[in-house]
Amino acid sequence: MFENASRTELTEMGEFGLIQHLAQHFESFADTTQLGIGDDCTVIQRDEHSFSLISTELYLEGVHFDLTFHPLKHLGYKLVTAGVSDILAMNGKPEQVLISIGLSNRFSLEAVEELYAGVRLACDKYKVDLVGGDTTTSRSGLVLNITAVGSVSKSSITYRKGNVKPNDLLVVTGDLGGAYMGLQVLEREKRVFMEVPSMQPDLEQFDYIIGRQLRPEARWDAVALLQELGVVPGVMMDISDGVASEIFHLAKANSIGFDIFEEKLPIDPQTVETAVSFDLNPSIVALNGGEDYELLFTVGQDQYEVIKNQPDFTIIGYVTDLVLKNQLITKAGNTFDIKAQGWPESQK
Amino acid sequence: MFENASRTELTEMGEFGLIQHLAQHFESFADTTQLGIGDDCTVIQRDEHSFSLISTELYLEGVHFDLTFHPLKHLGYKLVTAGVSDILAMNGKPEQVLISIGLSNRFSLEAVEELYAGVRLACDKYKVDLVGGDTTTSRSGLVLNITAVGSVSKSSITYRKGNVKPNDLLVVTGDLGGAYMGLQVLEREKRVFMEVPSMQPDLEQFDYIIGRQLRPEARWDAVALLQELGVVPGVMMDISDGVASEIFHLAKANSIGFDIFEEKLPIDPQTVETAVSFDLNPSIVALNGGEDYELLFTVGQDQYEVIKNQPDFTIIGYVTDLVLKNQLITKAGNTFDIKAQGWPESQK
Repeated sequence: MFENASRTELTEMGEFGLIQHLAQHFESFADTTQLGIGDDCTVIQRDEHSFSLISTELYLEGVHFDLTFHPLKHLGYKLVTAGVSDILAMNGKPEQVLISIGLSNRFSLEAVEELYAGVRLACDKYKVDLVGGDTTTSRSGLVLNITAVGSVSKSSITYRKGNVKPNDLLVVTGDLGGAYMGLQVLEREKRVFMEVPSMQPDLEQFDYIIGRQLRPEARWDAVALLQELGVVPGVMMDISDGVASEIFHLAKANSIGFDIFEEKLPIDPQTVETAVSFDLNPSIVALNGGEDYELLFTVGQDQYEVIKNQPDFTIIGYVTDLVLKNQLITKAGNTFDIKAQGWPESQK
Repeated sequence: MFENASRTELTEMGEFGLIQHLAQHFESFADTTQLGIGDDCTVIQRDEHSFSLISTELYLEGVHFDLTFHPLKHLGYKLVTAGVSDILAMNGKPEQVLISIGLSNRFSLEAVEELYAGVRLACDKYKVDLVGGDTTTSRSGLVLNITAVGSVSKSSITYRKGNVKPNDLLVVTGDLGGAYMGLQVLEREKRVFMEVPSMQPDLEQFDYIIGRQLRPEARWDAVALLQELGVVPGVMMDISDGVASEIFHLAKANSIGFDIFEEKLPIDPQTVETAVSFDLNPSIVALNGGEDYELLFTVGQDQYEVIKNQPDFTIIGYVTDLVLKNQLITKAGNTFDIKAQGWPESQK
């Protein structure tokens, strides 16, 4: 290739497309590699009955977090949550985390200790070991990378591409859109504070959604419940970019589509109220808001009775054979196509 | 703790001290964790006969590399070398790598493809699979994190703390100090170029040391040779920060000391000549220069005959019972203490 012969902007292909594009010409050598790029985790042969799971994620100041409103302790907790959530998304058991950290000299030891106090709280909560990492100087803001490691039995691993067929149920844990609305509130308060520094924000009425943004929980309890119920989902992933984006991946991987019922979307009242006060449609917030760290999975129709009685599981739709056609059935009975990313123009 | 009650500068404790300090209050939960923080890799139980090895390292623009003289293809290669070298340092077999990348929009797709062309060359060379990673926007320069995964049999794993006793031989692969002198040349040429942009540098006479800096090789062949010779080192690590720093870690972990003979230090003639032209002592360059990615290990005296006939292995000293006392015996027969980090004042 000639240097500078052409220039293609990175924004022309999404993040997912970029990874796939870059990895396409790579050969495979190791016979322990079970699954490479394209799922929540890399899957590696462990022993006769189980796989190792590994995921890695980069968290950059100014992109993934804003230190003016992300307390360092919460940030440490959230970092581990994000890593652990990837292991859970494969129906796995999180076991270890490794954290790389790039620090500018504006950080004191006490500040780093705060960050690690949050990491420790999360490690205690999820019962994972901090086993390694790398510490270095950064010339440009706080840089964090989490590598999470876990294991899963070969009989219960759940991939993005899996055992799924039309009429299977689409299920989500917890509620949706809270983390996104929490971020909107925090960013609004930051703007107000920049203009009128003496203003003390009253955030108590937003406690739930702000907590969802600053200190999300990975759903280890949902994975434990699935195991207790004897349910192995057909496909599963965690909701880091938003339901609309995640169902696009599931639909593409399995050559299927989804019908989702607006009235079924689980949304906390605080999320609804805040969305309305921001002039946003709560259903669109629920579909497009990221960082909820809930789990999204499919089960066969025969599991309907088992799932419907679990208060923390909500059946929001079902699988169709309309390849890559993902639709929202509104409360009024109208049908709209769900876009993979971004907001429908009219809802902005 | 009260916020801002005290402020301790990070520079007061080194990188190694910081990691140990931060991790000290963490509990251990997973029974698969064999070894956490403190070695080249994390060690995790794999099956009855083997361990999994995992390492993670952050590479930041402006700290670890300078894009004015690090071609992206070489940078991709070097990133994989650094990860693979950590696996080799445990006497392991590298199998997979995961790469996280933070990109500002000044990078074009073609630039990222160059970087991954280097990653692919290295994956082909070391026979490892690129199995995952994360791609994100960066507001501040190129951010790279490599997670390397491998395996090692329980009978041949080598730790930093291991089976080592006084009079054991200290052995190094390849030659030392080249990468450091290569960096000095590149930085000098950059300064010249900034002042006189029309000047075309003639770097041909520095080809070896510049290659050592820009495109280092991980010593998979040395690990293969050890296996072929039936030698399992007592302790081993790779040379990323410099021999002086690495023997400090080995001495501390095993409550031993080292005597090193200046005349035995393997230094390439180009490294020697360049060091002299920079008014630097080549032996000090060999001891303190980092990024050589050679391996440093101990073997018992009974392995002397086996090791001494290998042209790529050099016995540079031996283990003493003088705890943490690391000494350089000069060509003139004088003895000096080797400092763990930094240059002796008189040599600067």
